[in-house]
Amino acid sequence: MIRFVTTNEGKFQEVFDKLLGHGIRIERVDRAYPEIQADSLEKIVRFGATELDDQVPGDYLIDDSGLFVDALGGFPGPYSSYAFKRLGCAGILKLLAGVPRRSASFLTVFLLRKGGEHHTFRGEVPGTIADGERGKGGFGFDPIFLPEGETRTFAEMSVTEKNRHSHRGRAADELLRFLVRSQP
Amino acid sequence: MIRFVTTNEGKFQEVFDKLLGHGIRIERVDRAYPEIQADSLEKIVRFGATELDDQVPGDYLIDDSGLFVDALGGFPGPYSSYAFKRLGCAGILKLLAGVPRRSASFLTVFLLRKGGEHHTFRGEVPGTIADGERGKGGFGFDPIFLPEGETRTFAEMSVTEKNRHSHRGRAADELLRFLVRSQP
Repeated sequence: MIRFVTTNEGKFQEVFDKLLGHGIRIERVDRAYPEIQADSLEKIVRFGATELDDQVPGDYLIDDSGLFVDALGGFPGPYSSYAFKRLGCAGILKLLAGVPRRSASFLTVFLLRKGGEHHTFRGEVPGTIADGERGKGGFGFDPIFLPEGETRTFAEMSVTEKNRHSHRGRAADELLRFLVRSQP
Repeated sequence: MIRFVTTNEGKFQEVFDKLLGHGIRIERVDRAYPEIQADSLEKIVRFGATELDDQVPGDYLIDDSGLFVDALGGFPGPYSSYAFKRLGCAGILKLLAGVPRRSASFLTVFLLRKGGEHHTFRGEVPGTIADGERGKGGFGFDPIFLPEGETRTFAEMSVTEKNRHSHRGRAADELLRFLVRSQP
């Protein structure tokens, strides 16, 4: 049994559903853990794991996500949640006003401790920042993110549609492949 | 002997000079420690202290600083160093373009462990964000910060002048008062 340590019920449900489809059950541990200030999501989950290793028994899973805007040197990246709360989508649009280079990517990293070992899995969706906010779905920066090859933002898609090619969906696919491969 | 744990030589020198003037000597420990993502500087130094308590013997000092812009909900605040690297002064000016409310404050918090106890000291300088970058001195967001009652930015002042009424200077004054009071 893998414990997904997250305070976010929606996030848990998304991963739960995907893994259950392959006969893998996870349960949720609703608790926070320290996230350090670092320039990469990998560093953040690895530090979180050093904190959780003594506190959560058995196999567990944690994750972190962010929006990395190329013209802003990757900002807000690991600080996406804070930047969204303080600046919103409007802040990112304002920072990009008059900037022609609008490429960005959404990234999720999972860290799984299994049998005492740490494994990380990465999911990335390349795309661009839209000229304005569009759509009512999703959350966070979804209304300004156009995934590559799409004319709609993440916020204009249904949950199922978004999950199909979201960064978290892709990282969960990597995780799933690993778990299926390592099943007895 | 108090050890100031900091990777920043200039910061150490500033506090060293102030305390030495009152016969208190500190030494520098040049090492980094984990800084968590949190909405207040106090939380960041308190977490840092839980990490350092087992690793640094005797009395030690750590600090954290940030620029808190009111119209941006306190952004960049605890993430000032990252925001400066990614967005620079230009980013803050862009976010405030067309915003009449320009109040902001620079804040420093020191945490001192002395005789096994944690004490925190706070220094704050209220001010406003200038319309553009001015001055070549200082570092970080100094060129856009006008301390209250001043027509020059921190970057237009000499080091001595800035230190006299800087946030770190004020927090160091609080620290000094405490140390003088608790001298045998």
